[in-house]
This record gives sequence, C-alpha cells and structure tokens, in this order.
Amino acid sequence: MNSGEVPDVVVLRLPLYVRVLSQLLHRGDNVVSSDQLGALLQMTPAQIRKDLSYFGRFGKQGRGYDVKFLREKLRGILGLDLKWPTCLVGVGRLGQAIINYPGFVPEGFDILAAFDSDPEQMGTTVGGLAVQPMSCLDETVAAKGISIGIVAVPSAQAQSVIGRLVKAGVHGILNYAPVAPQVPADTVIRNVDPVLSLQSMTFYLMQDRGAPLAAMP
Amino acid sequence: MNSGEVPDVVVLRLPLYVRVLSQLLHRGDNVVSSDQLGALLQMTPAQIRKDLSYFGRFGKQGRGYDVKFLREKLRGILGLDLKWPTCLVGVGRLGQAIINYPGFVPEGFDILAAFDSDPEQMGTTVGGLAVQPMSCLDETVAAKGISIGIVAVPSAQAQSVIGRLVKAGVHGILNYAPVAPQVPADTVIRNVDPVLSLQSMTFYLMQDRGAPLAAMP
Repeated sequence: MNSGEVPDVVVLRLPLYVRVLSQLLHRGDNVVSSDQLGALLQMTPAQIRKDLSYFGRFGKQGRGYDVKFLREKLRGILGLDLKWPTCLVGVGRLGQAIINYPGFVPEGFDILAAFDSDPEQMGTTVGGLAVQPMSCLDETVAAKGISIGIVAVPSAQAQSVIGRLVKAGVHGILNYAPVAPQVPADTVIRNVDPVLSLQSMTFYLMQDRGAPLAAMP
Repeated sequence: MNSGEVPDVVVLRLPLYVRVLSQLLHRGDNVVSSDQLGALLQMTPAQIRKDLSYFGRFGKQGRGYDVKFLREKLRGILGLDLKWPTCLVGVGRLGQAIINYPGFVPEGFDILAAFDSDPEQMGTTVGGLAVQPMSCLDETVAAKGISIGIVAVPSAQAQSVIGRLVKAGVHGILNYAPVAPQVPADTVIRNVDPVLSLQSMTFYLMQDRGAPLAAMP
C-alpha cells in the first residue's frame, strides 16, 4: 500500500472510524457489522467496506469486524500511537486558545514551541512556553524534531509563515487563517475554516426561513 | 429540489465552489470548464458535473460554465447573500478568539449575543457584547431572530448547551467542543475539530518517518 493510492477523502474519514470504534469498545461491543458502522457514521455499508479495503482485509463475509483489532490497525495506519512534536506560530487570542486547548496532548500532539513575529511578544510566555522570534524557527524545529506546525496568524501572513515552516522541515500544517495556502507536494495541509462550516449549514437553514430553495433556470 | 435529496457531502463542497468561482471572477475569467474547476478543487470533472447537476443545468456541453452566473446561483442556494444572526455560548479564551475573528461578519454571520454560565463573566464585555446568563437565552434568541449558535464551552457542557440552543429555536450549531453531540433531525450541526484534522494528517507524515505504512495480515 502506498499513500498515493488512497483518496484523501478516505484518509479524512479514518479518524472518525477510530473514534466510533473506541466508543463501541468502551461500551463493550466486540464485533461490528458494516451496517452498524454505517448507521453510526451516516455512510452506506458499501462505502465503509470500500474505504477499509484500501488497507487490507479486516472483516469476514457475514461475520463483521473485530472492533479491537480494526481500531488498533487503523490507529497504527494513522500513526496515532506515536508522539507528534508540534509547534504553534502566532500567539494572539486564537493562538492562546489553541495552546490551552486540552484536546491535543492526549492524542499525541504536544505543542513544544511557540513563535511570533511581534517583538512585543518576546519574553512573554503562553501555555508554559517562552514565545520565540521567527528567527529561531529552523533551529528549534530541528532540535525538537517538530513535524507539525499550527498556524494562527492573520491571513496576510499565512502563506509566508507556512513557507518558512516548510523550509524548516515541517511537513504537516494545520492552518487557521481563512485562506487556502499553497504547499509543496510532500507537505500536507489542513485548513480549519469555521466560515466554510457555516456556509454549508445555511443551505439547510434556508428552508427554515421558507425561502425557495431553487429558482433554477 | 429538496435538501433531502442532496448528499451532505455535496453541500459541504458548495462553499468551496463559490470560493474558487470568486477567485476566477476576480482574475477576470468569465467561463470555466469542469476540467479547470476540477484542477482547482482537486476533484474529477465528472464529480463536479454530478455535484452541480443536483441544482439544475448550469453548463452547456463543451462550452463550460458562466463563472458569474454559477457563482450567483450557488450563493443563492447556500443563502450567502443573507444575514445570519448568530450567538456565541462560552466566552472563555476560545470564545473570545471566535468573537474577534474577522472572517465572520463579511460573510453575513453577525454575532449579536454572547452567553456564559459562569457568574463571574456577568457584567463583562466581549467583542463589544455584554455577556448574558444562560437564563436570557430564549428571550434573546427570539428577540434577535438568532438562527445559528456557536458553541465554545468545555466538552462536558456541550451537549446540554446545544440542547438548550435547539429548544430556544436555534437550528444551526457550530460546535467547537471535541465531542459529537446529538441534535434533532431539523437541526444541522458542524463540528470544528482540529484533532480530527491532525489525525488525518499523520497518515501522510508517517511516510516521512519511514515507518512501514501497512503491516496488514
């Protein structure tokens, strides 16, 4: 298996599978069918079987999946049992919220360094980390083996900050700026974009308003 | 057309279409083919034609899409030309970052009220809004015609806060807590979950580490 063969949309779904399998395990379910997984994930059983088929043969016809085994395999494929040294760029209000977010560390994402370009931030501390100037980026990334960068800078700076991270050897970017930065092919970027989420929600809310849904030609 | 006929995954993509069409318009492109759209969105042309076919006939065989027309139609379908009165629940660090986020207002999402359950927050102001107790929720939602609630409370409180929002008549929820709350069928929820984004990124970073991608049975 090569990651190039797996559609990104499938990769995006895998963590959801892991989450649902963890819930099943937690409540004592040892076996789950693709029908049951489909109901929990709001997907067709056929789609689930197809998604999983990229990674091997997990289930036996008519017998369902072993919850614990499948969960462990998917966690291994996603690298969720590893530690992922992470850095934060941008320690404004959003950056401070991110560094204090309790959800990262239990999942292996340890923010080990914080950077900002604002000279006024130097000497300050966020989430227990001394804020470093951008000039320290290369050295710190190398010294701490940082592979993921969380970018919480204003839109206008996002592309250049991401460029610097990539140059420093960071190949995973979680971008909070509402722009779509370009990254090289060997880098993976995810954009956290609340406006996109809202904009796909209003489609449904339109009907509450009694607005005509389609006035198509 | 009924929203029930359109797969949610298609609705999730529509705002991206709008964004790309805006970029094309901005640079003076009047016509775009599904091949070009596919290249910009990293999707197959066939998928793009299929997605758009849910909403009508936009393009002519071999002649491409009229950029301005398609953009306006999609904006209309998504309700992006309307104002969407929005409230925030939870004015901690994350809530403060959200209320000061500059991306919401230009897109029609005006945060008109802020709520918190912490008595210490009463009398304080965030983003120009006086923080209100949860007991004011019903009244304020009705008075201001609020249809969207942004939830930035700790995980343990998320489900109950969302339940109260729904009861107050809010049918669109943007949830920042790293949980998967349940909502009634007439309510639409989007979860902003940075951990899920990170977890789907490490799949690719595994290869940087030289880790064996698959040790499947």
